[in-house]
Amino acid sequence: MNNNTWIRTVSLTPPSLQDNTADADRLKADLQNQLQTDGIKTDFHLLKNLPELLRKWDYHVRCILFKDQGQWVLTGITHAEDARAVAGLAVDLGTTRVVLRLLELSTGETLAESSFDNPQIAIGPDILARILHTDTDGGLEENNRLITEGLNREILSLCGACGLEANDIYLMAVAGNTAMTHLFMGLNPRWIIREPYIPVVNVPGVVKAEDLGIRVNPSARVLVFPNVGSYFGGDLIAGILFSGMNTTEDTAILVDVGTNAEVVLGSRNWLIACAGAAGPALEGGVSRMGMMAGPGVIDKVAVNPDTYHFDIHAIEEQIPKGICGSGLIDLAAHLFLSGMVDIRGKLVPSVCGERLREKDGIQHLVLVPGKDSATGDDLTISQTDLDSLIRSKAAMFTILETITMSVGMSLSELSTFYVAGTFGCFIDPKSAISIGMIPDLPIDAYKPLGNSSLGGATLALTSSESVEEIDKIRDCITYLELNVNQEFMNRFSAAKFLPHTNTSLFPSVNVWA
Amino acid sequence: MNNNTWIRTVSLTPPSLQDNTADADRLKADLQNQLQTDGIKTDFHLLKNLPELLRKWDYHVRCILFKDQGQWVLTGITHAEDARAVAGLAVDLGTTRVVLRLLELSTGETLAESSFDNPQIAIGPDILARILHTDTDGGLEENNRLITEGLNREILSLCGACGLEANDIYLMAVAGNTAMTHLFMGLNPRWIIREPYIPVVNVPGVVKAEDLGIRVNPSARVLVFPNVGSYFGGDLIAGILFSGMNTTEDTAILVDVGTNAEVVLGSRNWLIACAGAAGPALEGGVSRMGMMAGPGVIDKVAVNPDTYHFDIHAIEEQIPKGICGSGLIDLAAHLFLSGMVDIRGKLVPSVCGERLREKDGIQHLVLVPGKDSATGDDLTISQTDLDSLIRSKAAMFTILETITMSVGMSLSELSTFYVAGTFGCFIDPKSAISIGMIPDLPIDAYKPLGNSSLGGATLALTSSESVEEIDKIRDCITYLELNVNQEFMNRFSAAKFLPHTNTSLFPSVNVWA
Repeated sequence: MNNNTWIRTVSLTPPSLQDNTADADRLKADLQNQLQTDGIKTDFHLLKNLPELLRKWDYHVRCILFKDQGQWVLTGITHAEDARAVAGLAVDLGTTRVVLRLLELSTGETLAESSFDNPQIAIGPDILARILHTDTDGGLEENNRLITEGLNREILSLCGACGLEANDIYLMAVAGNTAMTHLFMGLNPRWIIREPYIPVVNVPGVVKAEDLGIRVNPSARVLVFPNVGSYFGGDLIAGILFSGMNTTEDTAILVDVGTNAEVVLGSRNWLIACAGAAGPALEGGVSRMGMMAGPGVIDKVAVNPDTYHFDIHAIEEQIPKGICGSGLIDLAAHLFLSGMVDIRGKLVPSVCGERLREKDGIQHLVLVPGKDSATGDDLTISQTDLDSLIRSKAAMFTILETITMSVGMSLSELSTFYVAGTFGCFIDPKSAISIGMIPDLPIDAYKPLGNSSLGGATLALTSSESVEEIDKIRDCITYLELNVNQEFMNRFSAAKFLPHTNTSLFPSVNVWA
Repeated sequence: MNNNTWIRTVSLTPPSLQDNTADADRLKADLQNQLQTDGIKTDFHLLKNLPELLRKWDYHVRCILFKDQGQWVLTGITHAEDARAVAGLAVDLGTTRVVLRLLELSTGETLAESSFDNPQIAIGPDILARILHTDTDGGLEENNRLITEGLNREILSLCGACGLEANDIYLMAVAGNTAMTHLFMGLNPRWIIREPYIPVVNVPGVVKAEDLGIRVNPSARVLVFPNVGSYFGGDLIAGILFSGMNTTEDTAILVDVGTNAEVVLGSRNWLIACAGAAGPALEGGVSRMGMMAGPGVIDKVAVNPDTYHFDIHAIEEQIPKGICGSGLIDLAAHLFLSGMVDIRGKLVPSVCGERLREKDGIQHLVLVPGKDSATGDDLTISQTDLDSLIRSKAAMFTILETITMSVGMSLSELSTFYVAGTFGCFIDPKSAISIGMIPDLPIDAYKPLGNSSLGGATLALTSSESVEEIDKIRDCITYLELNVNQEFMNRFSAAKFLPHTNTSLFPSVNVWA
């Protein structure tokens, strides 16, 4: 058995006249001995049922534990040989989408996964609208109720799908951005968006599921991932944990591109972080272009530089209906490499030829003609879209450059470049390098992490060592405020070219081109 | 300010762009620094209100803390200069009577006290009946509801009397015997009375008042005194704490005479305890004779050995209506010293003269003739009453002898003899020595403690050091099972004489006689 899980099996000597230690203290003594600690707290609800459970199972039990600021807490017991799963629930608490993973705690095995749209979208699609809503009467409660009820519904259906009950969930770990975490806990996030941007709490630690209105086992505990501040949330801490960059000697970088670009640089010795929200250029962020990935959405594009033939791939091979972020980056890269856009990112009419259309005085490039598209309309990319993409990629590169320069390093020294989020899984690093969005590292230095927030939450439930790491990561991070000064703007201007005004930064792009 | 209280004043530097630490973490960091600890947990309910409270009071606050297994918990904050009391509630959870003391936590000053009959008396006057009742459907819940509702009512009226609200109570400490403590916490005590006599828990630690159904501040915590076993409860641990016998170099003894006689012997180095319930002789215990102390109840008796005149004192100088334990011991002592009873405790007709009446073949001694009594009937003491008293005093002395002999000491080596309980306050040690109930120590070695259970609970609320002591005391106690073997019975038989067959144990009695 993996001794790093939250599960411990205990076979107690039953009480006798010679040893009449109380049930709870008898169990605790054995666990304290196993765990080499002198502080284990038994959940009060569990305490009430303990005598009957211990007798029913002949003092031979499996214990579910968790750790809260160094203090162990016993959240449940089952018969040691019970085949029924002892479940944990990892949650990625996204602003847009909430993802759940149900785990068997003793093995770490995934039992089921599901996701649902964050029901707070009814209040507002972005987090700012939701925070402002908490200033209205009952607004905080409504925000909180929507997410907890949504989770409770999803938990029931997720458990039902595996033949389990919500009662079988003893531990939870929840990672989200700072505002989402506040709304989930019913904490008022109003000071997060007002200078000097103060959360209610940085390290919520472990909270009773019951106190949060989450209907799982009444003794269950929830680890809420800590944040570094209003703009650097628990989702990022979970991402760092999942990447493992906090444990290696070499310096790595982690980038999470969502509505903001959040970046962490460091190693086992130090971590420095910044968020793109501090820079103005990512406002028309990459993810707002086109549409979310889904069937019929173009995710890969290649352009033959000799024939200008477009090789277009839509998800699930369906008739195309739009383009997502990774497709757009591919497209921009290939337009550039084939000469259809110039180094300023402008469409070149002489090369684009009949693919160009002008609408309201703005050039559009036809990607898929109406006869081949799902909508019947031409699928086009406009000069405005390209300009916006170039501002975003320039902002991204400038942020990456600024954070590495702040520690006296250059981007070429990075050993690993972790890309978090769904976006990161689909992006072709070669294309992103071609447009100068990310540095020109060897392709195998790029490691997509997938849903790293969910991954980190999963680790917290399956490895007790990971929970120790979480606070260490948080305490280790230095937060870098991005000062949008002249130097930053100069770097930003240089990065607004394809791939960059300083082409020596992108030697491989010249080779490909 | 006394740095040993649970109150700490904090003046925080308000947040700024240069230091955007979250509110909870900012407060915690300052407290951790003051308390030299790295583990403080903020109550979740308090966390929700923290930002508004800190801003309202300009980050200048008084914090109410408590400690749970080495982990500090923040249970409340008020404005640092608020004149309103920050209250704590000490509770002596008696089987018969429940006593409450409301305290100002910052000074330890008593604000008010009150008491009420334990409403569980409706189920049964003794604890056994109540425990058996938990085997019936809803019996545990009824037991629990009666005591918690009784406490909630009394808390409201106690607070009202001081112009406070239940919400002003942030900390509680509750000391009671093991079974009462279980019923209070809603824990099933059924295994306490069944071999091998196992409580649900020995060390309940600190529990949320809310979890116990106690309506005080929603963030309040309750320290429930630990027990050593089914027959040695938190009331005794509180008594030891209150006496301070666990801190002195000299060996002392503590005796609590209630329905059982509970005895603790020891010093700062060791503690040994036993309870009279283990011996059969205290079944007709002292406290069951006569009546409880109250107006008109005889509490002091003196008999002139020359004139046989009875000098009788009734409480509040009212016309006598009965006799309480301390009066009975006085009476027995003086009857013996005046020769009206012999060394076997038998009434001597030739000396008692016309005070004797025979009823149903049993001799009765008239203490107060009907014309002078409140009832109009003669107040008498029968040979049966005396026999019962002598069995009780013999059992008491035998227990005291047995426990001191078990550590190779003699009773004469004891430096201090603490007498706990109301009974102990009124008893005249000289009388108790005269009948050989307690050892023949210098009179000033006897220290009545009053309600030591309430006293110990009070200490836990007013001194953080005391809370550290509680678990130390519990862990230090060796419990001595009283084996009612031939040796015990021999000692018991010898102690059934007045004062003892071995009169050299009671040199001063011979002098007085």
